[in-house]
Amino acid sequence: MTGRTFTVVGGGPVGSLLAISLARHGYKVGLYEGRPDSRKTSIYQGRSINIALSDRGWASLEKIGIGAEAKQQSIPMYHRAIHGVDGEMSELPYGQEGDAIWSVSRGGINEQLLDTAEEEPNITTYFELRLMDIDFETATTTFRSKSADELTVAADFAFGADGANSKVRRLAYGLHRFSYSQTYMPQCYIELNIPANPDGSHRLEKNALHIWPRKDFMLIALPNPDGTFTCTLFLNYSGDPSFESLTERSAVEAFFTANFADAMDLLEDPVDTFMQRTAAPLFLVNVFPWSFNRKVGLIGDAAHAIVPFYGQGMNCGFEDCAELDVLIGKHNHDWDQIFAAYENARKPNGDAIAELSKRNFVEMSDLSGDPRFQIRKKIEAKFSDCHPELWTPLYSMVTFSPDIPYSEALRIGDIQNAVMERIMAIPGIDKDWDKPFVMDRLFDLTSEFLETRQ
Amino acid sequence: MTGRTFTVVGGGPVGSLLAISLARHGYKVGLYEGRPDSRKTSIYQGRSINIALSDRGWASLEKIGIGAEAKQQSIPMYHRAIHGVDGEMSELPYGQEGDAIWSVSRGGINEQLLDTAEEEPNITTYFELRLMDIDFETATTTFRSKSADELTVAADFAFGADGANSKVRRLAYGLHRFSYSQTYMPQCYIELNIPANPDGSHRLEKNALHIWPRKDFMLIALPNPDGTFTCTLFLNYSGDPSFESLTERSAVEAFFTANFADAMDLLEDPVDTFMQRTAAPLFLVNVFPWSFNRKVGLIGDAAHAIVPFYGQGMNCGFEDCAELDVLIGKHNHDWDQIFAAYENARKPNGDAIAELSKRNFVEMSDLSGDPRFQIRKKIEAKFSDCHPELWTPLYSMVTFSPDIPYSEALRIGDIQNAVMERIMAIPGIDKDWDKPFVMDRLFDLTSEFLETRQ
Repeated sequence: MTGRTFTVVGGGPVGSLLAISLARHGYKVGLYEGRPDSRKTSIYQGRSINIALSDRGWASLEKIGIGAEAKQQSIPMYHRAIHGVDGEMSELPYGQEGDAIWSVSRGGINEQLLDTAEEEPNITTYFELRLMDIDFETATTTFRSKSADELTVAADFAFGADGANSKVRRLAYGLHRFSYSQTYMPQCYIELNIPANPDGSHRLEKNALHIWPRKDFMLIALPNPDGTFTCTLFLNYSGDPSFESLTERSAVEAFFTANFADAMDLLEDPVDTFMQRTAAPLFLVNVFPWSFNRKVGLIGDAAHAIVPFYGQGMNCGFEDCAELDVLIGKHNHDWDQIFAAYENARKPNGDAIAELSKRNFVEMSDLSGDPRFQIRKKIEAKFSDCHPELWTPLYSMVTFSPDIPYSEALRIGDIQNAVMERIMAIPGIDKDWDKPFVMDRLFDLTSEFLETRQ
Repeated sequence: MTGRTFTVVGGGPVGSLLAISLARHGYKVGLYEGRPDSRKTSIYQGRSINIALSDRGWASLEKIGIGAEAKQQSIPMYHRAIHGVDGEMSELPYGQEGDAIWSVSRGGINEQLLDTAEEEPNITTYFELRLMDIDFETATTTFRSKSADELTVAADFAFGADGANSKVRRLAYGLHRFSYSQTYMPQCYIELNIPANPDGSHRLEKNALHIWPRKDFMLIALPNPDGTFTCTLFLNYSGDPSFESLTERSAVEAFFTANFADAMDLLEDPVDTFMQRTAAPLFLVNVFPWSFNRKVGLIGDAAHAIVPFYGQGMNCGFEDCAELDVLIGKHNHDWDQIFAAYENARKPNGDAIAELSKRNFVEMSDLSGDPRFQIRKKIEAKFSDCHPELWTPLYSMVTFSPDIPYSEALRIGDIQNAVMERIMAIPGIDKDWDKPFVMDRLFDLTSEFLETRQ
């Protein structure tokens, strides 16, 4: 037992996991959440909000012993199921045989982590306490309760795990040499629902992530265990078509019918839902440093909110926790060293997954529907099968290779892009892609590029 | 007279110029400054703070009729005077014969603009009123006086012209889809002084900007009319050498002696000053939009704080005012249109000068002292003399060509870089640079690149 105390602001998945990790290292942890406890009050209003979990995330959950239990409540998605405008469908596997990303209930995983946290004698959880202020010199925090009482909490250290809109981060604006940015994407989103069949089965193929790629916008659907799908429509905030331009009911109906004809029979009141809901913004957060005075740190979305197009947000936050876990041991609880090592190790990876996630919007919404893109993916997959030592596809590096840091995946991915641009420029590649000479050329180019572009 | 009212927050050079421009369009303007009136209280504590003014800035001052008067109190600098480590000096002209950037007293120009503003019956100036809050829906502002009285000011519109640390901008964080960033540079700075000779003359060549380029750091000196020079030492915040590493008096003395030997006899107590002063940070601000609800706008450093290495900060802010001045006429006082047109016209230019200014640190601190860089500049100057229709050097586009927007200067500058990289790769260019074949090659390359890279 170290006897030292931590305040963790934010009882979401990352804050809960962090608390567990700190407690198991012997720290006394207060875990403070602003919203009510979802295990007692339904704050999700019957909506299933799901997120993608993949190998990086599973590794973290397994480490604390809840991986198997969480996996039981999750649905593996082995491929992208791509819905054309004409209703025609195609499949694009995510990786090799058996590789899957998992559709996980955000609320479910959060509750499981909270249950696990509360089993730790070193953790006390608090709900409906909103952070009002933090003293970055002393890590003392002030919270306000529902009844407007103020509570001042002293601790040796504090972490802001309070998400994309982190109050801890916003309170740090203006601190000495703190660089920060919050940048809105052109797209916003709303969530829609596909209900289950009367018998509880799924109305679309269950083990797939469904995509309706329409270039400037797209609809996606992730399966839930109860037979429903949670769908997300990503669409520009302004321009045409956009949330701003689609205000008339008839125009919204025409938009859905023209673009998502095959989904119209499945979606639950898409037009009404579109008319009623306010589109949520997508934004990126980029800050540095991730710690202040070696007393207060930022973690998860609070440090690096990204866009959801790679399904890596929670995975990345869990990886932050895993890194800290290792560093606490490595630096023997010396937080002067741990904070510095943590932010230096994780910042390049946060930047890399932010960049990769931004790029993946184009890949999902535009390229997924492009026949040449699908050929490219097939060539890559085949080459990777022949020469796994030379080529792991970018998607697999990011999603199925927790030992490859995001920053390294980005670097190698850029080399692969340069190589594949040359390959796709070969005349007749559309029909010849399966010929042996393509593999030979790819072998030569890859060997050359990997050698020269370190 | 339009009868409508404006609150301008910030009585610096940009705020004062904006107020004058608005008043002359018939608006009633309240100009609010948080600091005391420098014409009554010396807030500069005897220090001359000078900034560079060039053609874009002069155009704005001439437009309101104070250009000639301001120029009288300014000192033209026709070239860079480069001080080598060994004390050897070289010269690099800024442009063509007669082209100069001007060393201007920030306080002086500010006071002249305030005097001019106060001659306008439509302008009322207020000092020592600090902005506390702004309602972005109504443009109503709240100020606090020195005696802690609160003052609420209603107006039809408001502008934040309150500088790099703009309170208006910071209060806008969190507004709908407002993207913002504040990013610290590795360098910080302190100001030093070179006193005048006993007879009031300058101790270094007067009509030059003096640079001691030392790659990772540099010292510069700008002349003042009173015979002094205001010097700025730019040095990394951390690392070696840095403001953080140089804490011992003996180390600071050794640093100055080793790097600025020829300046040691001229500078006034550089070591003591270094030890006493806190290094000021350099940061960039990038935000969008620059207006909110068509009621409140941002202008000057409040919208786009940049680093000082191109000497364009005030010029760019003055250009913002000039653009608004044109748009008020063009859109006939319709501020729905003016705000939109203003931010769309100016944002790309703010981004471009931000990028150019960052790059110019390398040019000033590293390349200025590099013989190959000087050869490159000579080749460019010669080619520009022969073919002015094909080539205006980047520095001249930015500094002496107010008709070329910053964004266009950046675009053409990148093409020039690509061309000059090829030229400087010619074997033996160091000795052959003056030969006719170099001009021929440059002509061919430039024609080709300008055609193909639109």
